[in-house]
Amino acid sequence: MHIAIPLYPRFTALDAVGPYTVMAFAPGCTVTFVAAARGPVTDDRGSLTLQATASYGDLPHPDVVIVPGGAGTFDALGDRALVDWIAEAHAHTRWTASVCSGSLLLGAAGLLEGRKATTHWAILDLLAQYGAEPVSERVVTEGKIVTAAGVSAGIDMALTLLAQAGDVETAQAVQLAIEYDPQPPFTAGSPKTAPEGLPERALALLT
Amino acid sequence: MHIAIPLYPRFTALDAVGPYTVMAFAPGCTVTFVAAARGPVTDDRGSLTLQATASYGDLPHPDVVIVPGGAGTFDALGDRALVDWIAEAHAHTRWTASVCSGSLLLGAAGLLEGRKATTHWAILDLLAQYGAEPVSERVVTEGKIVTAAGVSAGIDMALTLLAQAGDVETAQAVQLAIEYDPQPPFTAGSPKTAPEGLPERALALLT
Repeated sequence: MHIAIPLYPRFTALDAVGPYTVMAFAPGCTVTFVAAARGPVTDDRGSLTLQATASYGDLPHPDVVIVPGGAGTFDALGDRALVDWIAEAHAHTRWTASVCSGSLLLGAAGLLEGRKATTHWAILDLLAQYGAEPVSERVVTEGKIVTAAGVSAGIDMALTLLAQAGDVETAQAVQLAIEYDPQPPFTAGSPKTAPEGLPERALALLT
Repeated sequence: MHIAIPLYPRFTALDAVGPYTVMAFAPGCTVTFVAAARGPVTDDRGSLTLQATASYGDLPHPDVVIVPGGAGTFDALGDRALVDWIAEAHAHTRWTASVCSGSLLLGAAGLLEGRKATTHWAILDLLAQYGAEPVSERVVTEGKIVTAAGVSAGIDMALTLLAQAGDVETAQAVQLAIEYDPQPPFTAGSPKTAPEGLPERALALLT
């Protein structure tokens, strides 16, 4: 199974590398970072640079697409090469997925009309602009479209997708290989449970 | 606060990028990927390449060091430039940390003698070779040395470290910014809870 993860300027690193690591540990899976052109792409913190090893033209029909989010998503919405690649790839994928604000790019590609979808809590309402029904859940599966909540949710999404694409035992073996037995030090990862005033502090970090 | 993450051939991507993302979202933190020489370093799956933007000589005294693990750790144990850099940097750090098999590199640098430490479940016993007391916990703090369990544990470790280095509210704000409210689809992330036979399957994925 060939998984493509498109990179664009100012993506969020963990959005891409969480699902990458899950998929790359799975037997029979190949993961390729794609971009407008082969070469380096820098994240939204300005201090991490990943190599894209294929251009969109090099990999028009991967089996799975996973679109990361990031501060750069809003500029990327106007990037026709990226949005058109997502739309064209989706016509042939087994699964088309997103992490965080990456779901807005699925929306811009016309994939979310009339579908439930999720994204980072801070921008959930924006999904309605693309005809989607925003859902506040960690991972939302609608047919072959799988969307995840913010940043770290890509790990949960990728394990879910792996179980659907292959088998539960393989997904569980990957979960154990990456020792994904999370023990967050605080109950602060969701606006539903975070201490009062924390969403404002978190928003300030995202811009 | 300046955080350095050393990269070496065949590191595990999420070991590095989990803590990177946590730290890079924190106000006042700068994260730099360092290596023997500036340039690309490829992970243990062979399909992700990160740029190191500083050499060890460029950054001898960061405030925090976070050493990732990976299949390449065992070769890296014989890499004197890396091991000596860790030892020298540690003499000046506020915190010296590791993820997964990265703790073996702290051991090789002489930092774990007589200390509790952890690593990936599959290699926990190896820590004793460095005079450490192996502990099966998600994150182990011993003075200024913080070690984490396998791969994904680096996210929990980095949030813990951020709270110690700065303040709890900042760590919580980062946790909310990256929506770290994990909901693993299976109870399979630890050998203590995984279904029978799963550790053997997971080990096969790691080699």
